[in-house]
Amino acid sequence: MSASVEVARSYARDHADEFVAELCDMLRIPSLSGDPAHAGDVRKMADWLAAHMVGLGLDHVAVMETAGHPVVYGDWLGAGPDAPTILVYGHYDVVPASLEDGWDTDPFVPVIKDGRVSARGATDDKGQLFIHVKALQAWLQTSGAAPVNVKYLIEGEEEVSSPNLTPFIKEHLDLLRADVVVISDSSMRVIEEPAITHSLRGMTYLEIHVSGPKEDLHSGFYGGAVHNPAVALVQMLDQLYAADGTIAVPGFYDAVVGLTDAEREMIAKTGIAEDQLTEVTGVPAQWGDQNFTIKERVSARPTLDINGIWGGWAGPGPKTIIPARAGAKLSSRLVANQDPHQIFELVRDFVASIAPTTVDVEVKLITTGLPALIPMDLPAMQAAARAYQRGWGHDAVFTRGGGSIPVVADFVDLLQVPVVMMGYGLDDDGLHAPNESYSLEMFSRGIETAIVYMDELAQLG
Amino acid sequence: MSASVEVARSYARDHADEFVAELCDMLRIPSLSGDPAHAGDVRKMADWLAAHMVGLGLDHVAVMETAGHPVVYGDWLGAGPDAPTILVYGHYDVVPASLEDGWDTDPFVPVIKDGRVSARGATDDKGQLFIHVKALQAWLQTSGAAPVNVKYLIEGEEEVSSPNLTPFIKEHLDLLRADVVVISDSSMRVIEEPAITHSLRGMTYLEIHVSGPKEDLHSGFYGGAVHNPAVALVQMLDQLYAADGTIAVPGFYDAVVGLTDAEREMIAKTGIAEDQLTEVTGVPAQWGDQNFTIKERVSARPTLDINGIWGGWAGPGPKTIIPARAGAKLSSRLVANQDPHQIFELVRDFVASIAPTTVDVEVKLITTGLPALIPMDLPAMQAAARAYQRGWGHDAVFTRGGGSIPVVADFVDLLQVPVVMMGYGLDDDGLHAPNESYSLEMFSRGIETAIVYMDELAQLG
Repeated sequence: MSASVEVARSYARDHADEFVAELCDMLRIPSLSGDPAHAGDVRKMADWLAAHMVGLGLDHVAVMETAGHPVVYGDWLGAGPDAPTILVYGHYDVVPASLEDGWDTDPFVPVIKDGRVSARGATDDKGQLFIHVKALQAWLQTSGAAPVNVKYLIEGEEEVSSPNLTPFIKEHLDLLRADVVVISDSSMRVIEEPAITHSLRGMTYLEIHVSGPKEDLHSGFYGGAVHNPAVALVQMLDQLYAADGTIAVPGFYDAVVGLTDAEREMIAKTGIAEDQLTEVTGVPAQWGDQNFTIKERVSARPTLDINGIWGGWAGPGPKTIIPARAGAKLSSRLVANQDPHQIFELVRDFVASIAPTTVDVEVKLITTGLPALIPMDLPAMQAAARAYQRGWGHDAVFTRGGGSIPVVADFVDLLQVPVVMMGYGLDDDGLHAPNESYSLEMFSRGIETAIVYMDELAQLG
Repeated sequence: MSASVEVARSYARDHADEFVAELCDMLRIPSLSGDPAHAGDVRKMADWLAAHMVGLGLDHVAVMETAGHPVVYGDWLGAGPDAPTILVYGHYDVVPASLEDGWDTDPFVPVIKDGRVSARGATDDKGQLFIHVKALQAWLQTSGAAPVNVKYLIEGEEEVSSPNLTPFIKEHLDLLRADVVVISDSSMRVIEEPAITHSLRGMTYLEIHVSGPKEDLHSGFYGGAVHNPAVALVQMLDQLYAADGTIAVPGFYDAVVGLTDAEREMIAKTGIAEDQLTEVTGVPAQWGDQNFTIKERVSARPTLDINGIWGGWAGPGPKTIIPARAGAKLSSRLVANQDPHQIFELVRDFVASIAPTTVDVEVKLITTGLPALIPMDLPAMQAAARAYQRGWGHDAVFTRGGGSIPVVADFVDLLQVPVVMMGYGLDDDGLHAPNESYSLEMFSRGIETAIVYMDELAQLG
């Protein structure tokens, strides 16, 4: 099979410009899943992807409805029932982006410069999901067949926490049956260190709403006699944090699986130095629980961040009001074996216990996701390591991801197969940030590695 | 002189409809000083007022330029150099208003209903300033002269904190010389209880800006290793407040002039019950320093309110970022003898002392205003009390205002004369709120009281 692999890889190299042009077509569609105003664009993106798959000659392609944005399903089953089947999961939706956020160019007009394509979704996840589509194309166009059966499950709601994905998987278990799930929606530190993610953090996302007077009050007339909702919010939020960078919600750490010495050693190999952190992020200094290294804190320890806070007048100049309302969005990144719902209950109950009677306080659950931990010694995981050696040209490392892909835990649970996370992004691609971009070199090496991974999986039998 | 007073009062009563129609002409001009799009309307309002004064036969009238919106100056000096001179201060500008804010009718199309005129600026301050213009007219049209000289200083930037007024007063001290300054830009609880405001709170308005990473970060990648600016902000802001409703900034209360038992007794006469407060504002309960009554806290004690707070994502749905920046607007209502600049320095230095090294923190002064305390036993103050008895028909109370009119302290300081605040508004006129309105009965009694006050001042000699 090795000769065919090389032919397929060669095809991918020869068609690099065409592949990039197609990726740019995807990037031009502002498929913001969180904004109802862009629902039409999300649909357009799904249709584009389905049409593209049909054009490549897949066996079955469908834009499948959910209670929210549709799932794009496609499969090529020509390797036959005895060959392994790979299920590629990705997402075609993106987070918001606009010039006012600090983009140098229109986030939905891809610009290629210095070997990178800049646009919202370039690395997360349009560029990465497309790698797997192009890998199959290379096999089909050169050998007329791929060595494994391939199924695609590309959803449109990952950036809004996949509210309809688990029901979809449950409803279509037979359609989605596979021997391994592959996901490319993560990143490596440098191109020479391809990473296989074996752990992801879960999530509990919630909102705290504080309300006081029925409308904004003149602070001269009522200041001193009315509990300012923004002050009450600040007073409660502060109590969620301890001075040492840990979270002060009682019981928050109870379910956390500790790190063994061996694990700490492995994590140390991909450690992050403080000067790297400050250089990349621009923060004046590192912060957090000093009982753990930076890398441990961003991958193997739970967090509680304020993602947004609001209340009163944020425009220019003075406005002397007592705001009627104030609020905050908070999210916890969770690690094994924290339960997202239990964490919500702990925060909710603690806030209730400290809420003053002078304002009204409501804590709302927005979304949850389970943490995941995949054994590194599974054959499909080891095959991925070999695919990187051959296809990428560097040895892979096993690493813990700090982010959350809630569906990973679902795949493990519902399909009972390994989930192999082969992230083809770079840590500094700027996903979810202004000027998100993706390296064309990574895109091209990713396609070759995906081609080789199909070969490696076929050899597992 | 008493007979002429009655003739002037009678003239005012006979021309009530005409005066209201003229007030409506003023209310039709959307003189929003804070909105550059309305600069032309602000100018139109100044021109209208100047033309109106010319029409009444004043000696000198001028629309005088400042670095911002113009001041309308007018005087009638026919009472001669031996008669007292009264300087009327008011403002012709208004705060924003639009139907979307919850107005029942267009805020710039005055509607008369149930004895009230509803429009933005009706009570604050077009209706109240116009009272003094109509009072002079009544004297001039009946006796051909008023018993005192009258000067008008009507500015167009009160609602944006009068940035150019103090320089204007300093530059035109001779023009503005007077024996007493009268201001009608405050209110009474009920029509039967006319109030002379003898104290106003000052103000220190500042902003706190916290910045961390150079741009928003993905909370999955950096959560746990980077100090979230919104968390850092919350942690600092909380330390500004003590659990008992007082302000925890060291030195904050040092310069506060305490209340005597006699003063507390007087304040108690116009006290606010908790159920009144909760009914009007809609808060679940009163709040604040329980060593003082509600009325004391909103008038004779200083405050520190969060007027606005922001950071990260405040739109719908989850967004898992560590915001690059977070900030807050805070303002202190100050009482005698707190110095606004010193209060700024206390807050700034305290914040600096608690600011973590893991983020950058900046505290910016936005604006200041001195508190004012006018002795109640001054002849001009007692004359005002008598004017209410005769002109309004009820005994006046001396009261402390919770709000700020920074120019009051300037007048005291620069002109070295008493400032008499005869507010002709009602507490529930809804100034700065939707459906601001003004009672025509108050307007008419105000004009008669202003007529009588001129007579009372003339008798002081």
